[in-house]
Amino acid sequence: MANIQCAEEFFMANEALRHFRPTQASIPPREVNYRLRLPSGVPVHIHALNPLAFLLRAAQVYPSKLALVHPDVPHPVIYSYGVWAQRVQNFAYALIQAGVKPTDRIAIIAPNTPAVAEAYHGVLGARAVICAINTRLTHGEVAYILEHSESKLVFVDHEYTHLVKGAKVPVVVINDNGREDDPYEQFLTSGRKFSGERGWPGLEWERNEDAPCALNYTSGTTGRSRCVSGYEALSAFFRELRMGLQIGLINAPQARRLERPVRAIIAGSAPTAHLIGELEKINIVPIHVYGLTCTYGPSTKCYYQPHWMSLSLEERAKLLARQGHSFATAEDARVVFQLKEGEIPDAPLVDVPKDGKTMGEIVFRGNIVMKEYFKDPEATCKAFRGGYFNTGDLAVWHPDGYIAVQDRSKDIIISGGENASSLAIEQELATHPDVLEVSVVARPHPKWGERPMAFVILHPQKAAKWKGRHAEFEQDLKKHVRGRLPGFACPEWVSVVDELPKTSTGKIQKVELRKLVAKL
Amino acid sequence: MANIQCAEEFFMANEALRHFRPTQASIPPREVNYRLRLPSGVPVHIHALNPLAFLLRAAQVYPSKLALVHPDVPHPVIYSYGVWAQRVQNFAYALIQAGVKPTDRIAIIAPNTPAVAEAYHGVLGARAVICAINTRLTHGEVAYILEHSESKLVFVDHEYTHLVKGAKVPVVVINDNGREDDPYEQFLTSGRKFSGERGWPGLEWERNEDAPCALNYTSGTTGRSRCVSGYEALSAFFRELRMGLQIGLINAPQARRLERPVRAIIAGSAPTAHLIGELEKINIVPIHVYGLTCTYGPSTKCYYQPHWMSLSLEERAKLLARQGHSFATAEDARVVFQLKEGEIPDAPLVDVPKDGKTMGEIVFRGNIVMKEYFKDPEATCKAFRGGYFNTGDLAVWHPDGYIAVQDRSKDIIISGGENASSLAIEQELATHPDVLEVSVVARPHPKWGERPMAFVILHPQKAAKWKGRHAEFEQDLKKHVRGRLPGFACPEWVSVVDELPKTSTGKIQKVELRKLVAKL
Repeated sequence: MANIQCAEEFFMANEALRHFRPTQASIPPREVNYRLRLPSGVPVHIHALNPLAFLLRAAQVYPSKLALVHPDVPHPVIYSYGVWAQRVQNFAYALIQAGVKPTDRIAIIAPNTPAVAEAYHGVLGARAVICAINTRLTHGEVAYILEHSESKLVFVDHEYTHLVKGAKVPVVVINDNGREDDPYEQFLTSGRKFSGERGWPGLEWERNEDAPCALNYTSGTTGRSRCVSGYEALSAFFRELRMGLQIGLINAPQARRLERPVRAIIAGSAPTAHLIGELEKINIVPIHVYGLTCTYGPSTKCYYQPHWMSLSLEERAKLLARQGHSFATAEDARVVFQLKEGEIPDAPLVDVPKDGKTMGEIVFRGNIVMKEYFKDPEATCKAFRGGYFNTGDLAVWHPDGYIAVQDRSKDIIISGGENASSLAIEQELATHPDVLEVSVVARPHPKWGERPMAFVILHPQKAAKWKGRHAEFEQDLKKHVRGRLPGFACPEWVSVVDELPKTSTGKIQKVELRKLVAKL
Repeated sequence: MANIQCAEEFFMANEALRHFRPTQASIPPREVNYRLRLPSGVPVHIHALNPLAFLLRAAQVYPSKLALVHPDVPHPVIYSYGVWAQRVQNFAYALIQAGVKPTDRIAIIAPNTPAVAEAYHGVLGARAVICAINTRLTHGEVAYILEHSESKLVFVDHEYTHLVKGAKVPVVVINDNGREDDPYEQFLTSGRKFSGERGWPGLEWERNEDAPCALNYTSGTTGRSRCVSGYEALSAFFRELRMGLQIGLINAPQARRLERPVRAIIAGSAPTAHLIGELEKINIVPIHVYGLTCTYGPSTKCYYQPHWMSLSLEERAKLLARQGHSFATAEDARVVFQLKEGEIPDAPLVDVPKDGKTMGEIVFRGNIVMKEYFKDPEATCKAFRGGYFNTGDLAVWHPDGYIAVQDRSKDIIISGGENASSLAIEQELATHPDVLEVSVVARPHPKWGERPMAFVILHPQKAAKWKGRHAEFEQDLKKHVRGRLPGFACPEWVSVVDELPKTSTGKIQKVELRKLVAKL
């Protein structure tokens, strides 16, 4: 069988895999043509970019190479590129057989399993739009998304069927065992049957590069926002990167320096200089990227400059904590002055000076930006003010051209007329050795209007040390940051907590902290 | 100065560089905006791909990194990305000042010097079309190209001014010393003055991805053929790769095995298994690519399969000598049956079976294919038969999907009704230890119609051995290939020569050999 050859080491490592065989429908025919059918009238020297091309090439050139392994489950599966591509092809045909038309939405609710990877490609094969729903959402949120997206079909991992109870949409359950009796496998088999072995040439190549391919409902602060994005499939793979990962790493008692440097991507929210420094200590090279769902995830990177090597860890970490420059795939990222009261919305955007001080809003444009907010032209128009996507993130622009996020616009604390960046405050508080995580929000103040309030999680190994002495810790922490922050930015209140409210993507929900503050 | 920091090692290595400073006009202003002006009405989520973007990004992110060094000349030059980008910008403005409009052709005749790299980018900046003319062409050929291309301006390296004597086109001479008194430098300076420091935003971003950017006159067998290609600038850098390189390497008496493997690209014409084997012996890892000027150079690659490692050198070399699969940038490469007599030209193309035997023609399509033959719609239409670019190269398709070139259609030798591939014959002759280079053409034969005749250059160290005994060598060579080739493919005649006629790009001119044969 095709996939055995390159998968030897995995069979060795995982006895269970030895016994796995893909379903009959997953085995490609002897001679395969890995080309989609071209629509007529396409010039010889032009082909529309299509994310499916990556998989088709892999299957064409390296059919027996290991594509996908899913070992740590009761029923491990393993697929070569040849087999995996066949499954994707089956998926596409099964959708078409089910009556799915180009631009129809197809929903999926599943953890990181083979079915998700197959859905992302199979939906493209049918020229439909994938709508991946976060497994951490509630039944109500899922119901809303299914209705709003008008999904024609929803795939659900067997662990999450409760999220689609009572859904009016046809449901395909994924038992995630790769066996003939898995409803999901039966769905794929039906596609293979329906294909009549027309293979890839039986599916049409999407000639319109601007055709939608993904409908993403963000778990961001706008609650039920949503965006349709164009072809940029690869970047979707960044989705799962979170800050939590790394914080857990450096605080694990068994953490020790790695023999060889390991590159790790940091995304989700701006890392503290403290975190980056700690990562370097255990030989993890942090690659700091920044972006939003509406820019397809990461779209800036803090490009490392050789001469930074000569700097102290703390200096270097501060530079690395900046968001940097736009990706090659993002045509442009700028920091511009925000729209002032009474200003006409389509006034040309004006860059803030590259002085590392003047705060403005980060804006993006280019192939990496979402196409629109689905069914919400008004929000789209607002977000695209000045011909750029307005992120709502506040930043400064440094003389070396590096962008550094300061805050979400609404997270700014206006203390005695001064703008205090809650992020900047958090970064300094996080340098206290006993602080594990910290979040800062504005709290109303009779004299200064607003003052910063800090919510702190103590380092597990230090919690005991301050037990019953939180007032002392508060003093110690304030003392620690005094020299490091301007007076107006020093936290007025510090509250030690056991956990911080987070979104399903691991971002701290400041809106929840504000509710707490409001009750004080 | 910006470029000093990263260029230290070069200053150390080359004393002369220490004294070089770029012209005033080459120093970028303190604050630079590396973005071209966007034409109005471009959607936020779309940006046309533009090869200039690579340079602009490099200059934005790494302004002081070493971009370009030209050390081994009387007046060495060295530029950082910041400085080099400024020079390119000056180039673009100077063209506009000279009245150059989008799609106008700009010619350049120069060896591998900084001016060439600057021209390739500067011409894009002015949205004009670069026409790089081969320095090995004759005065007459150059005159034809300048006239046919209607070039508005021609840049000529000081060593090649004789090629443009009497040209009606305005000429800018390049003294290649980077000094204020170099006419080329004065041209750049005039551009900087004309720019009024509007910088990159003073130049418009080309919104049409299908706009022409290069007009290439091939030195191929069609003599004065020419093609206009769309944006694919990077691949243009492959231009200079030649087989000659490697043949010289393996035959150099001082050749010895390298400590670490070095990747080397083989292109220009199909390498013999013998050559690949010899390269591996000295630890050079050959990357075999194949393509034509009209597919922007390399467009297939012989992708290496892990399990080939277990094969013998000769077996592996035979596999590596194949042309392989299309690049990611080439949507598709196929081997199809050639147009038969009386067949309608726009009949759909039919793939040859993947049996490694049936011969067909290699065809390409996709973003890497040229746009058209300039001013020759008829030739374009013929070349694009069936919606693909027809290369005229004959090949077989192996069961593993690898394409293997057999011959140019007209180089096939029809001996006793059998099709003999001159390339296949050459590959076997080249395995004789005393053979340095060999070329085979058809020679009329009273009984068989045609029979192969081989022209052989002896290995320098073996020439003495066979001095005055060429007849014996001929027998020895025939004996060597007898078992390896079918009878009809064994050369009937062998002629030992001192050199083989070659084109300016290093390809053997079989047309010249045929003239010799005709005289016999």
